[in-house]
Amino acid sequence: MRTRRVVREYTDHRIDDTTLDQMLAAMLAAPSASNKQAWAFVAVREPRMLRLIRAFAPGIIGHPQLIVAACFDRTRAARPEGRVPGAWEVGLLCVGMAVENLLLAAHALGLGGCPVSSFRKDPIRTLLDLPAHLEPVLLVPIGHPAQPVEPNHRRDRNEVISYDSWNQRATADR
Amino acid sequence: MRTRRVVREYTDHRIDDTTLDQMLAAMLAAPSASNKQAWAFVAVREPRMLRLIRAFAPGIIGHPQLIVAACFDRTRAARPEGRVPGAWEVGLLCVGMAVENLLLAAHALGLGGCPVSSFRKDPIRTLLDLPAHLEPVLLVPIGHPAQPVEPNHRRDRNEVISYDSWNQRATADR
Repeated sequence: MRTRRVVREYTDHRIDDTTLDQMLAAMLAAPSASNKQAWAFVAVREPRMLRLIRAFAPGIIGHPQLIVAACFDRTRAARPEGRVPGAWEVGLLCVGMAVENLLLAAHALGLGGCPVSSFRKDPIRTLLDLPAHLEPVLLVPIGHPAQPVEPNHRRDRNEVISYDSWNQRATADR
Repeated sequence: MRTRRVVREYTDHRIDDTTLDQMLAAMLAAPSASNKQAWAFVAVREPRMLRLIRAFAPGIIGHPQLIVAACFDRTRAARPEGRVPGAWEVGLLCVGMAVENLLLAAHALGLGGCPVSSFRKDPIRTLLDLPAHLEPVLLVPIGHPAQPVEPNHRRDRNEVISYDSWNQRATADR
Protein backbone atom coordinates (compact mmCIF):
# COMPACT_ATOMS: atom_id res chain seq x y z
CA MET A 1 0.00 0.00 0.00
CA ARG A 2 2.78 2.42 0.88
CA THR A 3 4.75 1.95 -2.37
CA ARG A 4 1.79 1.99 -4.78
CA ARG A 5 1.67 5.08 -6.98
CA VAL A 6 -0.44 6.13 -9.92
CA VAL A 7 1.07 4.86 -13.20
CA ARG A 8 0.00 6.65 -16.40
CA GLU A 9 2.54 5.46 -18.96
CA TYR A 10 2.96 1.84 -19.93
CA THR A 11 5.16 -0.44 -22.02
CA ASP A 12 3.57 -2.53 -24.80
CA HIS A 13 4.11 -5.70 -22.75
CA ARG A 14 0.88 -7.74 -22.80
CA ILE A 15 -1.01 -8.77 -19.63
CA ASP A 16 -1.57 -12.54 -19.57
CA ASP A 17 -4.71 -14.39 -18.46
CA THR A 18 -3.26 -15.56 -15.13
CA THR A 19 -2.21 -12.06 -14.11
CA LEU A 20 -5.59 -10.67 -15.16
CA ASP A 21 -7.43 -13.36 -13.18
CA GLN A 22 -5.42 -12.61 -10.02
CA MET A 23 -6.22 -8.92 -10.26
CA LEU A 24 -9.92 -9.52 -10.85
CA ALA A 25 -10.14 -11.96 -7.92
CA ALA A 26 -8.60 -9.34 -5.60
CA MET A 27 -11.00 -6.71 -6.93
CA LEU A 28 -14.07 -8.87 -6.29
CA ALA A 29 -12.95 -9.54 -2.70
CA ALA A 30 -13.65 -5.91 -1.72
CA PRO A 31 -16.38 -5.13 0.81
CA SER A 32 -19.76 -3.89 -0.39
CA ALA A 33 -22.80 -2.42 1.35
CA SER A 34 -24.95 -5.25 2.77
CA ASN A 35 -22.70 -7.59 0.74
CA LYS A 36 -24.86 -6.81 -2.31
CA GLN A 37 -21.83 -6.58 -4.62
CA ALA A 38 -23.84 -4.06 -6.64
CA TRP A 39 -21.19 -3.77 -9.30
CA ALA A 40 -20.12 -5.05 -12.71
CA PHE A 41 -16.82 -4.86 -14.54
CA VAL A 42 -15.68 -5.09 -18.14
CA ALA A 43 -12.03 -6.09 -18.60
CA VAL A 44 -10.86 -4.89 -22.01
CA ARG A 45 -7.63 -6.12 -23.64
CA GLU A 46 -8.68 -6.22 -27.31
CA PRO A 47 -6.48 -3.60 -29.10
CA ARG A 48 -9.25 -2.04 -31.18
CA MET A 49 -11.50 -1.67 -28.12
CA LEU A 50 -8.63 -0.16 -26.11
CA ARG A 51 -8.10 2.42 -28.87
CA LEU A 52 -11.79 3.30 -29.03
CA ILE A 53 -12.11 3.68 -25.26
CA ARG A 54 -9.06 5.94 -25.14
CA ALA A 55 -10.66 8.17 -27.77
CA PHE A 56 -13.51 8.92 -25.36
CA ALA A 57 -11.44 9.07 -22.16
CA PRO A 58 -9.18 12.13 -22.01
CA GLY A 59 -8.14 11.02 -18.52
CA ILE A 60 -6.28 8.03 -19.98
CA ILE A 61 -2.87 9.33 -20.99
CA GLY A 62 -0.60 6.41 -21.97
CA HIS A 63 -1.37 3.25 -23.95
CA PRO A 64 -2.51 0.68 -21.38
CA GLN A 65 -2.72 -3.04 -22.24
CA LEU A 66 -5.82 -3.38 -20.09
CA ILE A 67 -8.70 -1.10 -19.19
CA VAL A 68 -11.18 -2.21 -16.54
CA ALA A 69 -14.51 -0.38 -16.69
CA ALA A 70 -15.98 -0.39 -13.18
CA CYS A 71 -19.76 0.05 -13.03
CA PHE A 72 -22.44 0.45 -10.37
CA ASP A 73 -25.38 -1.95 -10.78
CA ARG A 74 -28.54 0.01 -9.94
CA THR A 75 -30.73 -3.10 -9.80
CA ARG A 76 -28.75 -4.51 -6.88
CA ALA A 77 -28.29 -1.38 -4.79
CA ALA A 78 -28.23 -1.98 -1.04
CA ARG A 79 -30.32 1.06 -0.30
CA PRO A 80 -33.30 2.66 -2.04
CA GLU A 81 -32.96 6.06 -3.70
CA GLY A 82 -34.22 8.92 -1.56
CA ARG A 83 -32.43 7.89 1.61
CA VAL A 84 -29.33 9.67 2.88
CA PRO A 85 -26.80 8.58 1.76
CA GLY A 86 -28.56 7.30 -1.34
CA ALA A 87 -28.03 4.21 -3.45
CA TRP A 88 -25.77 6.07 -5.86
CA GLU A 89 -23.48 7.42 -3.13
CA VAL A 90 -23.16 4.05 -1.43
CA GLY A 91 -22.55 2.48 -4.84
CA LEU A 92 -19.68 4.89 -5.54
CA LEU A 93 -18.03 3.98 -2.24
CA CYS A 94 -18.23 0.24 -3.01
CA VAL A 95 -16.89 0.66 -6.55
CA GLY A 96 -14.07 2.82 -5.17
CA MET A 97 -13.08 0.06 -2.73
CA ALA A 98 -13.10 -2.62 -5.44
CA VAL A 99 -10.96 -0.41 -7.69
CA GLU A 100 -8.46 0.17 -4.89
CA ASN A 101 -8.11 -3.62 -4.48
CA LEU A 102 -7.53 -3.87 -8.25
CA LEU A 103 -4.82 -1.20 -8.14
CA LEU A 104 -3.12 -2.81 -5.12
CA ALA A 105 -3.14 -6.23 -6.80
CA ALA A 106 -1.74 -4.69 -10.01
CA HIS A 107 1.05 -3.08 -8.00
CA ALA A 108 1.83 -6.33 -6.16
CA LEU A 109 2.15 -8.04 -9.57
CA GLY A 110 4.58 -5.44 -10.93
CA LEU A 111 1.94 -3.54 -12.90
CA GLY A 112 0.49 -0.11 -12.35
CA GLY A 113 -2.66 1.82 -13.09
CA CYS A 114 -4.76 4.82 -12.37
CA PRO A 115 -8.45 5.48 -11.57
CA VAL A 116 -9.94 7.69 -14.30
CA SER A 117 -13.25 9.50 -13.93
CA SER A 118 -12.73 11.81 -16.88
CA PHE A 119 -14.49 10.04 -19.76
CA ARG A 120 -17.63 10.47 -21.88
CA LYS A 121 -20.23 8.21 -20.37
CA ASP A 122 -22.56 7.77 -23.34
CA PRO A 123 -19.98 6.66 -25.94
CA ILE A 124 -18.33 4.37 -23.35
CA ARG A 125 -21.71 2.88 -22.52
CA THR A 126 -22.39 2.22 -26.23
CA LEU A 127 -18.91 0.81 -26.90
CA LEU A 128 -19.13 -1.62 -23.99
CA ASP A 129 -22.77 -2.58 -24.69
CA LEU A 130 -23.71 -1.65 -21.14
CA PRO A 131 -27.38 -2.14 -20.27
CA ALA A 132 -29.19 0.84 -18.72
CA HIS A 133 -28.88 -0.44 -15.14
CA LEU A 134 -25.07 -0.48 -15.26
CA GLU A 135 -23.58 2.95 -14.63
CA PRO A 136 -19.90 3.31 -15.58
CA VAL A 137 -18.09 4.99 -12.66
CA LEU A 138 -14.36 4.62 -13.25
CA LEU A 139 -12.10 3.44 -16.05
CA VAL A 140 -8.90 1.85 -14.77
CA PRO A 141 -6.04 1.68 -17.30
CA ILE A 142 -3.38 -0.86 -16.28
CA GLY A 143 -0.06 -1.89 -17.76
CA HIS A 144 3.62 -2.43 -17.10
CA PRO A 145 5.09 0.90 -15.91
CA ALA A 146 7.15 2.65 -18.60
CA GLN A 147 9.17 4.51 -15.96
CA PRO A 148 10.26 3.74 -12.42
CA VAL A 149 7.50 4.59 -9.97
CA GLU A 150 8.45 7.66 -7.92
CA PRO A 151 7.04 8.74 -4.56
CA ASN A 152 4.60 11.64 -4.80
CA HIS A 153 3.79 14.56 -2.52
CA ARG A 154 1.78 13.73 0.55
CA ARG A 155 0.00 16.24 2.75
CA ASP A 156 1.32 16.55 6.27
CA ARG A 157 -0.33 13.99 8.47
CA ASN A 158 -1.28 16.58 11.10
CA GLU A 159 -3.26 18.38 8.45
CA VAL A 160 -5.56 15.44 7.74
CA ILE A 161 -5.73 13.38 10.93
CA SER A 162 -7.01 14.34 14.33
CA TYR A 163 -7.68 12.32 17.44
CA ASP A 164 -11.02 12.05 19.25
CA SER A 165 -12.31 15.30 17.75
CA TRP A 166 -11.30 17.62 14.94
CA ASN A 167 -9.96 20.44 17.12
CA GLN A 168 -7.50 18.09 18.83
CA ARG A 169 -5.09 17.88 15.95
CA ALA A 170 -2.21 19.87 17.35
CA THR A 171 -2.76 19.11 21.00
CA ALA A 172 -3.60 15.40 20.88
CA ASP A 173 -2.64 13.76 24.15
CA ARG A 174 -2.51 10.18 22.98
CA MET B 1 -7.39 -8.99 0.21
CA ARG B 2 -8.94 -12.41 -0.31
CA THR B 3 -9.26 -13.28 3.38
CA ARG B 4 -10.52 -9.89 4.62
CA ARG B 5 -14.14 -9.97 5.79
CA VAL B 6 -16.38 -7.47 7.49
CA VAL B 7 -16.04 -7.71 11.29
CA ARG B 8 -18.90 -6.30 13.38
CA GLU B 9 -18.23 -7.70 16.85
CA TYR B 10 -15.10 -6.97 18.82
CA THR B 11 -13.31 -7.95 22.02
CA ASP B 12 -12.48 -5.23 24.58
CA HIS B 13 -8.77 -5.51 23.75
CA ARG B 14 -7.36 -1.99 23.27
CA ILE B 15 -5.67 -0.81 20.05
CA ASP B 16 -2.21 0.59 20.80
CA ASP B 17 -0.57 3.69 19.26
CA THR B 18 1.81 1.74 17.01
CA THR B 19 -0.98 -0.34 15.50
CA LEU B 20 -3.12 2.76 15.01
CA ASP B 21 -0.25 4.60 13.32
CA GLN B 22 0.38 1.73 10.89
CA MET B 23 -3.29 1.63 9.88
CA LEU B 24 -3.47 5.40 9.40
CA ALA B 25 -0.29 5.41 7.29
CA ALA B 26 -1.74 2.74 4.99
CA MET B 27 -4.99 4.71 4.73
CA LEU B 28 -3.23 7.93 3.73
CA ALA B 29 -1.27 6.10 1.01
CA ALA B 30 -4.46 5.63 -1.07
CA PRO B 31 -4.78 7.33 -4.45
CA SER B 32 -6.82 10.50 -4.78
CA ALA B 33 -8.08 12.53 -7.73
CA SER B 34 -5.30 14.84 -8.97
CA ASN B 35 -3.44 13.85 -5.79
CA LYS B 36 -5.46 16.48 -3.90
CA GLN B 37 -5.98 14.20 -0.89
CA ALA B 38 -9.28 15.99 -0.36
CA TRP B 39 -10.01 14.15 2.83
CA ALA B 40 -9.75 14.35 6.62
CA PHE B 41 -10.04 11.71 9.31
CA VAL B 42 -10.82 11.64 13.00
CA ALA B 43 -9.49 8.58 14.86
CA VAL B 44 -11.53 8.09 18.02
CA ARG B 45 -10.43 5.81 20.89
CA GLU B 46 -11.68 7.77 23.88
CA PRO B 47 -14.36 5.55 25.54
CA ARG B 48 -16.93 8.32 26.12
CA MET B 49 -16.61 9.53 22.53
CA LEU B 50 -16.94 5.96 21.22
CA ARG B 51 -20.17 5.57 23.22
CA LEU B 52 -21.58 8.85 21.94
CA ILE B 53 -20.77 8.07 18.32
CA ARG B 54 -22.39 4.64 18.61
CA ALA B 55 -25.56 6.30 19.90
CA PHE B 56 -25.91 8.15 16.58
CA ALA B 57 -24.72 5.35 14.30
CA PRO B 58 -27.20 2.45 14.10
CA GLY B 59 -24.87 0.83 11.55
CA ILE B 60 -22.28 0.20 14.27
CA ILE B 61 -23.30 -3.04 15.94
CA GLY B 62 -20.54 -4.20 18.32
CA HIS B 63 -18.35 -2.21 20.71
CA PRO B 64 -15.28 -1.20 18.69
CA GLN B 65 -12.12 0.11 20.37
CA LEU B 66 -11.56 2.53 17.50
CA ILE B 67 -13.84 4.44 15.16
CA VAL B 68 -12.31 6.32 12.25
CA ALA B 69 -14.57 9.02 10.82
CA ALA B 70 -13.65 9.49 7.16
CA CYS B 71 -14.58 12.88 5.69
CA PHE B 72 -14.49 14.58 2.32
CA ASP B 73 -12.82 18.02 2.36
CA ARG B 74 -14.85 20.29 0.07
CA THR B 75 -12.22 23.05 0.05
CA ARG B 76 -9.65 20.77 -1.60
CA ALA B 77 -11.85 19.03 -4.17
CA ALA B 78 -10.06 18.13 -7.41
CA ARG B 79 -12.97 19.18 -9.56
CA PRO B 80 -15.46 22.04 -9.37
CA GLU B 81 -19.13 21.32 -8.67
CA GLY B 82 -21.30 21.25 -11.77
CA ARG B 83 -19.04 18.99 -13.79
CA VAL B 84 -19.86 15.33 -14.41
CA PRO B 85 -18.83 13.54 -12.28
CA GLY B 86 -18.86 16.32 -9.69
CA ALA B 87 -16.60 17.09 -6.78
CA TRP B 88 -18.79 15.17 -4.35
CA GLU B 89 -18.83 11.99 -6.46
CA VAL B 90 -15.08 12.05 -7.01
CA GLY B 91 -14.62 12.75 -3.30
CA LEU B 92 -16.68 9.69 -2.36
CA LEU B 93 -14.51 7.49 -4.60
CA CYS B 94 -11.31 8.76 -2.99
CA VAL B 95 -12.63 8.34 0.56
CA GLY B 96 -13.78 4.82 -0.37
CA MET B 97 -10.27 3.92 -1.54
CA ALA B 98 -8.65 5.30 1.63
CA VAL B 99 -11.12 3.35 3.80
CA GLU B 100 -10.38 0.14 1.89
CA ASN B 101 -6.66 0.62 2.64
CA LEU B 102 -7.56 1.13 6.31
CA LEU B 103 -9.62 -2.08 6.38
CA LEU B 104 -6.89 -4.07 4.62
CA ALA B 105 -4.24 -2.79 7.02
CA ALA B 106 -6.49 -3.64 9.99
CA HIS B 107 -6.94 -7.15 8.64
CA ALA B 108 -3.19 -7.57 8.07
CA LEU B 109 -2.63 -6.58 11.72
CA GLY B 110 -5.14 -9.12 13.05
CA LEU B 111 -7.94 -6.60 13.51
CA GLY B 112 -11.20 -6.20 11.64
CA GLY B 113 -13.69 -3.53 10.78
CA CYS B 114 -16.59 -2.47 8.67
CA PRO B 115 -17.50 0.61 6.60
CA VAL B 116 -20.67 2.20 8.02
CA SER B 117 -22.73 4.77 6.13
CA SER B 118 -25.77 4.50 8.38
CA PHE B 119 -25.29 7.33 10.88
CA ARG B 120 -26.86 10.70 11.67
CA LYS B 121 -24.63 13.29 10.06
CA ASP B 122 -25.53 16.34 12.13
CA PRO B 123 -24.95 14.88 15.61
CA ILE B 124 -21.73 13.22 14.40
CA ARG B 125 -20.57 16.53 12.95
CA THR B 126 -21.25 18.26 16.27
CA LEU B 127 -19.63 15.53 18.37
CA LEU B 128 -16.46 15.56 16.30
CA ASP B 129 -16.33 19.38 16.02
CA LEU B 130 -16.19 19.11 12.25
CA PRO B 131 -15.99 22.44 10.40
CA ALA B 132 -18.54 22.99 7.61
CA HIS B 133 -16.15 22.08 4.79
CA LEU B 134 -15.58 18.56 6.15
CA GLU B 135 -18.37 16.17 5.15
CA PRO B 136 -18.46 12.89 7.11
CA VAL B 137 -18.83 10.04 4.59
CA LEU B 138 -18.12 6.80 6.44
CA LEU B 139 -17.59 5.70 10.02
CA VAL B 140 -15.20 2.75 10.31
CA PRO B 141 -15.44 0.78 13.57
CA ILE B 142 -12.33 -1.37 14.16
CA GLY B 143 -11.36 -3.84 16.84
CA HIS B 144 -10.09 -7.33 17.58
CA PRO B 145 -12.59 -9.80 16.08
CA ALA B 146 -14.79 -11.45 18.74
CA GLN B 147 -15.39 -14.49 16.51
CA PRO B 148 -13.36 -16.25 13.84
CA VAL B 149 -13.76 -14.51 10.50
CA GLU B 150 -15.83 -16.65 8.13
CA PRO B 151 -15.98 -16.48 4.33
CA ASN B 152 -19.13 -14.83 3.02
CA HIS B 153 -21.25 -15.39 -0.07
CA ARG B 154 -19.80 -14.09 -3.31
CA ARG B 155 -21.71 -13.61 -6.55
CA ASP B 156 -20.63 -15.84 -9.39
CA ARG B 157 -17.78 -14.24 -11.26
CA ASN B 158 -19.50 -14.67 -14.64
CA GLU B 159 -22.35 -12.57 -13.33
CA VAL B 160 -20.17 -9.52 -12.68
CA ILE B 161 -17.23 -9.72 -15.09
CA SER B 162 -17.23 -9.63 -18.85
CA TYR B 163 -14.42 -9.35 -21.35
CA ASP B 164 -14.10 -6.63 -24.02
CA SER B 165 -17.80 -5.81 -23.92
CA TRP B 166 -20.73 -6.57 -21.64
CA ASN B 167 -22.47 -9.08 -23.93
CA GLN B 168 -19.35 -11.26 -24.08
CA ARG B 169 -19.73 -12.69 -20.63
CA ALA B 170 -20.69 -16.25 -21.47
CA THR B 171 -18.91 -16.49 -24.80
CA ALA B 172 -15.62 -14.78 -23.99
CA ASP B 173 -12.90 -16.11 -26.24
CA ARG B 174 -9.91 -15.09 -24.16
